[in-house]
Parts: sequence; structure tokens; C-alpha cells
Amino acid sequence: MRRRKYWGWGYEDEGLSSAEEARLGSLLATFFGVTPAPGSAPPPVEALGLPASRLPSPPPASFASSVSAYDRVLHAGGRSYRDLVRFRSGRVDHPPDLVAFPASVSELVACLEWVDRVGAAVIPFGGGTSVTGGVEPAVPARFSGTVSLDLSRLNRVLAVDPLAQLVHVEAGILGPDLDAALKPHGLSIRHYPQSYYFSTVGGWIATRSGGHYSTLLGKIDTRVCALEVVAPNGTVGATRKLPSSSIGPDPNALWIGSEGLLGVITKAWLRVHPLPRFKKTVGVQFQELGHALEAARRIVQAGLYPVHLRVLDPFEAMMSAAFTSGLFEEARPVLILGFESAAQEVDAMLEAALAQAAACGGKTASARGTKADEVEGWRHIFFRQPYVRDTLIGWGLIADTFETAIPWDRAEAFYHEVREATLEAVEEQCGAGAVLGRTTHAYPDGVAFYFTFFGRGRPGEQLEQWSAIKKAATDAVARGGGTASHHHACGRDHAPWSEQELPSIWKAALLGAKAALDPRGAMNPGVVFP
Amino acid sequence: MRRRKYWGWGYEDEGLSSAEEARLGSLLATFFGVTPAPGSAPPPVEALGLPASRLPSPPPASFASSVSAYDRVLHAGGRSYRDLVRFRSGRVDHPPDLVAFPASVSELVACLEWVDRVGAAVIPFGGGTSVTGGVEPAVPARFSGTVSLDLSRLNRVLAVDPLAQLVHVEAGILGPDLDAALKPHGLSIRHYPQSYYFSTVGGWIATRSGGHYSTLLGKIDTRVCALEVVAPNGTVGATRKLPSSSIGPDPNALWIGSEGLLGVITKAWLRVHPLPRFKKTVGVQFQELGHALEAARRIVQAGLYPVHLRVLDPFEAMMSAAFTSGLFEEARPVLILGFESAAQEVDAMLEAALAQAAACGGKTASARGTKADEVEGWRHIFFRQPYVRDTLIGWGLIADTFETAIPWDRAEAFYHEVREATLEAVEEQCGAGAVLGRTTHAYPDGVAFYFTFFGRGRPGEQLEQWSAIKKAATDAVARGGGTASHHHACGRDHAPWSEQELPSIWKAALLGAKAALDPRGAMNPGVVFP
Repeated sequence: MRRRKYWGWGYEDEGLSSAEEARLGSLLATFFGVTPAPGSAPPPVEALGLPASRLPSPPPASFASSVSAYDRVLHAGGRSYRDLVRFRSGRVDHPPDLVAFPASVSELVACLEWVDRVGAAVIPFGGGTSVTGGVEPAVPARFSGTVSLDLSRLNRVLAVDPLAQLVHVEAGILGPDLDAALKPHGLSIRHYPQSYYFSTVGGWIATRSGGHYSTLLGKIDTRVCALEVVAPNGTVGATRKLPSSSIGPDPNALWIGSEGLLGVITKAWLRVHPLPRFKKTVGVQFQELGHALEAARRIVQAGLYPVHLRVLDPFEAMMSAAFTSGLFEEARPVLILGFESAAQEVDAMLEAALAQAAACGGKTASARGTKADEVEGWRHIFFRQPYVRDTLIGWGLIADTFETAIPWDRAEAFYHEVREATLEAVEEQCGAGAVLGRTTHAYPDGVAFYFTFFGRGRPGEQLEQWSAIKKAATDAVARGGGTASHHHACGRDHAPWSEQELPSIWKAALLGAKAALDPRGAMNPGVVFP
Repeated sequence: MRRRKYWGWGYEDEGLSSAEEARLGSLLATFFGVTPAPGSAPPPVEALGLPASRLPSPPPASFASSVSAYDRVLHAGGRSYRDLVRFRSGRVDHPPDLVAFPASVSELVACLEWVDRVGAAVIPFGGGTSVTGGVEPAVPARFSGTVSLDLSRLNRVLAVDPLAQLVHVEAGILGPDLDAALKPHGLSIRHYPQSYYFSTVGGWIATRSGGHYSTLLGKIDTRVCALEVVAPNGTVGATRKLPSSSIGPDPNALWIGSEGLLGVITKAWLRVHPLPRFKKTVGVQFQELGHALEAARRIVQAGLYPVHLRVLDPFEAMMSAAFTSGLFEEARPVLILGFESAAQEVDAMLEAALAQAAACGGKTASARGTKADEVEGWRHIFFRQPYVRDTLIGWGLIADTFETAIPWDRAEAFYHEVREATLEAVEEQCGAGAVLGRTTHAYPDGVAFYFTFFGRGRPGEQLEQWSAIKKAATDAVARGGGTASHHHACGRDHAPWSEQELPSIWKAALLGAKAALDPRGAMNPGVVFP
């Protein structure tokens, strides 16, 4: 049976090809002036020397569970840089004492009841792709142990409603399985976070995830029509399937982004979309980033509805082209613009958008000969990036990403502030390195930025280097008025910044809600609230 | 100084013209076979014999307030049928003991502190246009009295940001004042609930209001970028101005629709829109309602973005035409379709939508000679309808509206179920009457229906008749899977149905949040939770 890597992205038999690794290596040699050498392989699970489970053994038969070393290590964290560096070096700080695999809501309720009886904490695992410490069983010492709740057996498609364009699924289903069930109906979720192949619907909802087509179609927040949730006390509740309502605050909104604090999302009715028949993607080159951002703003404010719209800064554009071509060339900011429709041609929309871009000084790819590779190459490597990061981590480098959002009035200044603060920290920590930026989502009132940073790691000190850079970057984001995360969630990693981002009145309200449902505070303690 | 009617809509010098009354009268004579006669005029405020205020006198000077009979009566309820029938007959069940008019957040905090000290309950009044009992000071006996919180002095525009298309306002501002401040910037709120002239931004947010252009632009939920709220304990908190975030559940969503339960909304950053330069509205006639609904569904699912889209059932279409022309003619279902844009022509969008409508059997107005009046006449009377209702109430008739929403898979069947149950109750209670229906908002996954019912009232028994009809209608909505309100909020009138509509787990969470902020439960007790 194919197993997921405990120390990296995807399955054990997956990763970059030798050719890709060679290209990446030569790219780094050119860029950083170093010839990276593969580090030592991660230790086998058996060599990790996990402490024994602290919970009563054997666990009850009322729900499926495992205490195998592999299962415990796989559920000991997510896929953040911090997680992977530790795992690769054989360091597993917080293995869960038990991994539960409920195959039904009643098994899940039985699990929660047992957890309550034995005084443990529960961490909903989703697909385990959190990059913000959202699934690491790092909980206060008052708990007798930790249970990681793996929902991968709750993965059925319960109903497809092509008329209302809704699908009813269990929350443990993965992105590709959902799309496979929708395809015969001519539908698709059209929600493509980078974690698409390994993340779950429940995880998307619990983290307010965004994806590749979220400029038109919105983050997962807008796709949720109804939810079933199980409270820590075992109460099951479902919201009504409605396009909208005004009976009190939106009941779904309390669980969307709740990161497990208020219980477990077990089912969802999601809004889905007809498969596009008409598609157009174009790249537009600009002399200056500010002009590209202005074009992006004008396009979304003109009501032109691009399904995706991204601005690559010159560094991102250069790396993107170099990864495809192997060559470094001075690059200009690029606006990538995609339209799609299941019902009608999109040419008029695209033309109107290109007119807006031209008015800001943009030259379309064909007019200026910008390589189509820059456009398609970027998309091609989107889903490969986590594997690239694995290789970089294996070579001992610092390599991570973070993302944020800001209103348009501050967009360009904010980009420079954050990039410069991050670059300064990278240079201080690593001697040399790079920070690349792009926008990932555009709204009429603002934009989401996504930054990637690289730097040389000092063997054994990478986590300290990374922490200093992460702190400098997130401090700059907070100072500039941005959010600590636009679509990666708060987790444990951003919790120190939630305090200044969110009003105390909101925290009091949310903790009041949690106290009512989870008097022991046993659901994923440590996320959101530091 | 111009004063608002305590017993009806708008200012004391406003109402239907004699010509409008005459036309309405002849229309009713034709329709109901009765010649309505004006009832007695509402008693003057001085004759109402209000009980003395139960709260300490004089109130503190730290915030402006009033105990005048007029102010107490004006704040004794909203503008529901139930409210107005009672007021007109001189029955004022729950006058507040004090009306507070804070002119600043610090005055508001002083008011909340005083209320806490004297053990009273607080009812945020907004513009007082609630049609669901949301502002009636009907509270449990454990409170020493009631304070109605009028925010009309917190009505400043604090900032307009044309770049990010955002406006920062105090929550007591009325719709027209907001638009007047936006107009010099080429912007508009484009949110037109029927209460637009008399309702406040804070009220819109607290009730999840919808408006005339909400099909494209969304209900007020989607317009809220950031909020300032004051908790019952006097804590002031503001969310950050962000296009989106994933740091915990959306903090705005807890207050959007909270109907005063969690504190007072004092400021908002709202997303606004450029004034449209290109506009087209067309009416399309169908042989059958089901075909019109199918056209509506196809259009919104095709991603064609009409700014408004309404389907009038044959009864609504007939009454609408008759009100304008004075003539009854057999009418067919009508689809009203409007497109607008500030940036580009909308003809291509409109044509694509009309092609969808034609594929469902629709004939456009020009092609079939449908009177343009049917289209424009409907919009013309939109803002007049509350005055029409006043006249009907004055004539002793039963005349009210209710609205709901449902997914597309149930839309047509649900319409018939709800309409028939309501008509049956109207006929049982009134002998004769009518129920008209239209859709007001369309979504890819569902649609909002709005029903109007009329019937003969028995003098002095109208409230009992109305209650029986309201119960039959709302029971049918609940049985059919709809929501008790799509955009009028829960208030006190729909609270009996919230129990079955919302899961208990959500109620527990919301009451937990409330307990944390409002341990005395003094904020608008009685709304949402029966």
C-alpha cells in the first residue's frame, strides 16, 4: 500500500525527477553561488524512538484507531517548513498518543466521548497539510494525552444536485475525489489550493482556504451552503441548505475558519460550478509593479470577473521563467489574467480587461513577445512547488512562503515594506537569499500577496534562522495593517499575532462560544488563541 | 421640525396622494368587491396615556436622552403590520422607559454603564423600520425597565476611499445621507432595501438586509469590510480593514445579523460601487411560472451577473400593472432583468441573458408588446409600498408581506406550497383575499421569494386574523425547507421558528458568546431566541 511521506509532501514514491533536481541545483548555483549537496536521508520511522502512548490501552472498539509508530508520526504535525525540518532530522516533538479513524459520525461521537472520559485533547487532522502548525498535537500539560482525528474514512459523496449546483459530501474527502464524483454531472469544485491533492473539504472549511480560481469564485467561505458539525460534547448539528438567510448571524460562519476549536466539521453542502467550455489566459508585461497592481485593481473594480488574476513581481517572474527555461533574464512584472465560462465566450471580457491593462502601460504577451512559458510555466509548477520545497529542505536551505492581504490604498507600499523587512531578515540570517512576491487573489477593495523566501541554512540552525525571518516578516505584515494570513489560517504559528489583529471583544465572544460547547477546552487547544 | 409618524411610514406630512388613494380604492373595490372607507384617525400622542417611566429620573447628563411621550411612542416598536395596527388604535404595549440619543461612542458607553447600574434592558433602535418585532421593548419582567438606543446622532461619514472603494461611516447614518456623501466621489452604496430612506447602516448590518441590487452585489453581508462594535460591558472593539483573512472565523460575521444580541454596531467600513454609466432593464413574459424560474436559474448559473433579477408571479404582475394603469388584465409571469456597469456596455450580457430566457420560452417586452409600465411601474412603486400599506391598514384591511429563500431544486414546488397555505389561511380568516408572489434575489444555488397578502379585516380582530395567517405562512415555509426570513431578520416575530431552523449547537455557541459579553442578557432580549 502506498504511504504518505512522514517527512515531506505527497506519497513516498513521489518527488522531483532527477532532471528537475538538476535544473533546480544549477538555478541555485547561479542564484546563490552555492552547489547544493543532498543532505542525509530522513531516518526510518522505526528509528525515531517515539515515547509510548500515554492513553489507556487498548483503546475502545467503538471507533477505529491506531497507535502504530507510522500513524503517530504522520499525525505529529502538518507540512510547514518547521514541521518538515524537524521530521527530516528525526525530531518528533508531539506525536499524538492515538490516531482515530472514525468511519461514521457515530464512531466520531464515540471517539469524542472516550476522549472526554480519559481527559485527552483532540486535534482534527483533515489532510494534515497545514503550513501553520494547525494540526500539531502541542497542547497544554493539563491534558492526559492527545488524539489526532483523521477523517479520511469519512469521504463519501452523499448527493450531487446539478439543478442547484450543490454537492453533499463527508468532510474527509480529498479534492481530486470530489472532482471525480462531480465530473459525470459536468460540474467541478474549481477550488484549487496548492494542497488540493492531499487536503480535505473539512480542512478547507476549517481554515478558510483559497485556491487558484478564487478571484472570481471566492474562497471556500463563499462555497459553503450548509454544514454538519459535531460539538466536543458529542452533539451533532446541521445548518439548513439555504442560499442565504437573515435568521441570526450566519450559522456556517462560526465554523468556517474555526480550526477545530468549536468541534469537527463532518459534512458539507458545497456550491460547485459547471465545467468551463470557454477559457482564455493571457500574460501582460509591465515596466513597473505599481502599474501592474493598478491594472489588477481596475480590472476587478470594473466588474470583469476574471476567474484568476495574479501579478508576479520581477523576482517571481524571473524565477518562474528560469525554472522553466533554466536561464536567468531580467524580468518585468507580469499580470496573468484568466477568464472562463461554461455558458458563453469570454473574449469580450478579456478584451475589456486587456484594455484596462493597456491603459496602465501593459503590453500583452503576443504584442511584446513575452514567452508563453511565463504564463503556462507558472501554472505548471504550481502543484509541484511543495516537492521543490522538499528538495530545498533536503539540501539544507531555508525555503518557505507566507501570504497576507491588504486594501488597495496600501497595496504597493505594503508590498515594499513587507518584502524589504523579509529580505533584510533573510540577509541577516542567511548572508544571502531572495524574496519573491506575487498577488494571488484580487478583490474590489484589496489584494492578497504571497511571498516566497530562500536563503542558505546553517546546518542544525535552520529552525532558528527560519523563526527570525518568520517573525520579521509577520511583524512587518502586522505593522502595515495586513492580516497574518489570507488563506493559510492562524494555526499555532500565527497565534502570537492574532492578539493584535483581532479585537478583544471578538476573542471574548469566540471563547464564550467555545466554553459553551467545549467546557474542557479540549478541541485543538493552542490554535488562534496563544 | 418635521416629525416621523408614530403610527405609520415616513414623516407626518407624507403618504399617498388623493389620486393614489382613489386608484387604490377602486382597485380594491374591483378586486375585493368592497368600497373601503377611511377608519378613524390615530389618536394624538398626548391621548395615549403612557405609563410613567420606571427608570430613575432625571437620567444622567453623560448621554443625551428623552422621556417625552412622542419619543417613547416612536420607539415603542418598528413598522410591522402588528406594530402599526396597534399604534393606530392607540395601543402602545411596550413603550421604552427612556430613549437614549448618544452623539459619540463615549456617550454610548456611558449609557450602557448606566443601564447596567439600573438593571434595565437595551434595545438598539437603528432606524426603527423593523418589520419583525426587532426593536419592540418587549423584555422579560426581570429588567427594571427598557432603554431604546437611537443612533441617529451617530451619523457621520468618517472617510471615503475611492481607490479601495470603501467608505467609513458611523452606524446611525441613513441610506440617502450615505449616498449623498458618496456621490461627489462617483460612488454609491447601491443597496436599496425598501426601508432605504429611513433605515440605518447599523440596522442593515444587524439584520442581514437585502436590497434592490442585491442579486449582483449581494446582501449587506458582502459589503461589510470592517466593523466597530461596543459590547454591553462597554468594551469597544474594531475589526481590521481587510478584503479577506483566515485568522479564525470571520470576526465581522458574528455581528452581521446579530440583531443587537452581542452589542451595538457603531461604525462600519463598507464596500461601495462606482455609479453605473451603462444600464439596461428588460421585462420578459412567460406562459408559466416554472419557465420564468428556470430562466432565472439559468441566467445566474451562467455567470451573467444581472444587478437585479426578479420574477413576478401572474398575480403580482397583474396587481403591478393594475396599480399603474388602473385596469385589471390577465397577466403572465414576468422576468425583470437589469444589467449595469460603470466600466463597459452591458448589451452583450443582456443579450446572452435574453437568449437564456428565450430558450425557456420567454418573450421580451418589445417582441411581445408587454407594457414598459410593467417594468418601470414596478420599480416606481417599490419605495411607495409602505405608504400603500398604511392606507390599507387605515381602511381596516389585512395587508402584509413575508419573504424566504430556498434552493433551486425545491423552488417551484415550494412557491406553490407556501402560496396555497397562505391563501387558504387568508380565505379562512378573511373570507376573501389575495396572495401575490415574486422572487427578489437569485443565487446560483437558490432563490428568495417575497409574498404579499391582502384580506378583509374584521374591525378590532385584525391582529388575530393576521397572526393566524402569519403562522400558517411561516409553518409552510418551515415545512418546505425555507428560511423564516431571507432579509427581514428574525426579530421577535420569527423567533418561534428559529428553534427548528437552526441547530441547537449553534444556539449554544451564540448564547455562549452572548454570556461572555452580556452576562445580564440585557441586550435586546427576546430576538432570535424565543
